Amino acid sequence: MAKSSSSAAPRYNFASGPAALPSEVLAEGQEALTDCLGTGLSILELPFSGPDFTRILTAAEQSLRHLLRLPETYRVLFLQGGASAHFAYVAQNLAAPADCAEYVVTGLWSRRAAAEAARYCRVRVVAEGRDAPPPEAVWDRAPGSAYCHITTNETADGLQYHWLPAAGDVPLVADMSADLLTRPLEVERFGLIYASAQKNLGIAGLTLVIVRQDLLHRPCAGAPAVFDYARQAENRSKVNTPPTFAIFMAGAMLRWMERRGGLEALAEENRRKAEVLYGAIDRGGYYSCPVAAGSRSLVNVCFRLPTPDLEARFLAEAAGRGLLNLQGHPAVGGIRASLYNPLPGEAAEALAAFMDRFRRS
Amino acid sequence: MAKSSSSAAPRYNFASGPAALPSEVLAEGQEALTDCLGTGLSILELPFSGPDFTRILTAAEQSLRHLLRLPETYRVLFLQGGASAHFAYVAQNLAAPADCAEYVVTGLWSRRAAAEAARYCRVRVVAEGRDAPPPEAVWDRAPGSAYCHITTNETADGLQYHWLPAAGDVPLVADMSADLLTRPLEVERFGLIYASAQKNLGIAGLTLVIVRQDLLHRPCAGAPAVFDYARQAENRSKVNTPPTFAIFMAGAMLRWMERRGGLEALAEENRRKAEVLYGAIDRGGYYSCPVAAGSRSLVNVCFRLPTPDLEARFLAEAAGRGLLNLQGHPAVGGIRASLYNPLPGEAAEALAAFMDRFRRS
Repeated sequence: MAKSSSSAAPRYNFASGPAALPSEVLAEGQEALTDCLGTGLSILELPFSGPDFTRILTAAEQSLRHLLRLPETYRVLFLQGGASAHFAYVAQNLAAPADCAEYVVTGLWSRRAAAEAARYCRVRVVAEGRDAPPPEAVWDRAPGSAYCHITTNETADGLQYHWLPAAGDVPLVADMSADLLTRPLEVERFGLIYASAQKNLGIAGLTLVIVRQDLLHRPCAGAPAVFDYARQAENRSKVNTPPTFAIFMAGAMLRWMERRGGLEALAEENRRKAEVLYGAIDRGGYYSCPVAAGSRSLVNVCFRLPTPDLEARFLAEAAGRGLLNLQGHPAVGGIRASLYNPLPGEAAEALAAFMDRFRRS
Repeated sequence: MAKSSSSAAPRYNFASGPAALPSEVLAEGQEALTDCLGTGLSILELPFSGPDFTRILTAAEQSLRHLLRLPETYRVLFLQGGASAHFAYVAQNLAAPADCAEYVVTGLWSRRAAAEAARYCRVRVVAEGRDAPPPEAVWDRAPGSAYCHITTNETADGLQYHWLPAAGDVPLVADMSADLLTRPLEVERFGLIYASAQKNLGIAGLTLVIVRQDLLHRPCAGAPAVFDYARQAENRSKVNTPPTFAIFMAGAMLRWMERRGGLEALAEENRRKAEVLYGAIDRGGYYSCPVAAGSRSLVNVCFRLPTPDLEARFLAEAAGRGLLNLQGHPAVGGIRASLYNPLPGEAAEALAAFMDRFRRS
């Protein structure tokens, strides 16, 4: 991350995931590729059921539990598929086909989550919000639903919850792919949390599921055995071969977060980075952000320029100055700067300075 | 792979997967972890939809097509989940719930594949074999079945097909997790082939699907969108974030196979390694192999000692001599030496020499 190119200017990677990683974590990965923890074998060669990999998996879980202050009643699963696959598995694991699941739709990803779940159970969209999460008072919730699903950060739209709904009797389920581990979290408010790893927790190919154990019922009706959460919990995520290197890297990322002072310290850094960019957006009436002020994402800053042509020029000139991967999600367009934990404050400052220059040019 | 420990003796990793990797391929992975193809970014940081990763994916597919002489009518998918997940997805993609799928059961993995498929369609076991694949003449096949499934190599049982059934009108489907790319293959005989990568194609977290395109029908009834083979084929394996590093490593492994002379040369080396071990098994009436002579696996050599106590001593002494990860599958027991492409001939010779010494001790 933040590599120096052959010229003197630093390069910053604002990609939405796979995203920038700390150079210390990359160095740990490199070392483990030839000799993992003194085994003389590569992390890529270790049997997943042996004691060496088991130690790696256990340590990663312990770091996660420590960072999130995870209660004993929650189980941690290290799975594959990406959050998009778990749009289906959440429904299959928590709802019977005749059950109703509630979805709050706030953008691209919650809409996709609801659409995929609707293939496996009855889905009711209880509220929609375009530029902010709809206030809980207008959610049309019903007792007896299997769960209520939110997407705490809309990666494509740049919208984020800065409050949490009341848990109530219906378990709250959240896709936190973009903001898990970017700020302190009251996990107790949730029945289940899931997240792709390639944003704040390392690399593509790993999906984390954190689930309150009373929600795990066997057998799971529809999902393949390896995506039966109860079965994976019983087997410590080893029903089949887990993505061992992605789990190693998650462990390295979690230790890095601990060294950085934990979630309170990371949240403060992330808030500062976002403030720098929103400051640049709000100056001069040139850039625009479609998200309401209190609901802007601190991890995916999305904004527009006056015309698509100017956006294309902005992206090309930014890339020429080492400000990389700033294009918005293809379904949304515009500009998106992703500011996950590993992205340093200097990156946000460099981008804000470029935005000011571009605006005046 | 075959690292030297601090002492002088080489160490050999006979694990069944994740398994030994060539040191050249590990070195490529290490380099890509800090600078991937001159991008200045780590392979772990590259956006999956950008031109750099697209080049990596395209090159991996081209190498695979070249090695397997893959006809244009076949599509290649780079997916997640492991073969165990695809036990379900094969059924969901190729059969409607009322359709019949035929399974030939020859050991642990084909039995599991049939059991998982039976949750999604009607499954008929058309033949069973314990110490050899049942001859095709006794397969109780029926016209109109959605597909006929075999497991070309039973990793846990040490049994392998050394002949291929006639394709007929019903598409032949094969789990080739252990032996894809270990020998030349008439792909045209198959409708669909799938394989976990962590044996001959790199690392855990990647599953390869090779499918004849006329078998791809949309929409797929039951599988999540990201495991809808037709949709993944249309989207070049990018319906959601693919396991980018595992795909990079698969590309590196495929280039290594090309440099080694392709599948004919690898098959010859693999045959020699297996002969060395079966020779040691058959000498002296001490070791026993439960598989019929013409059906022994060239990639997973499974054998027993006279008693479980002797097997435990054998494993401990072998490990002490740098012959690692020789325990059989937990459901089967005994000894298993996996001899995938990267394992050097010296490893098989060292193990055979140890077996001779142990037998006489």
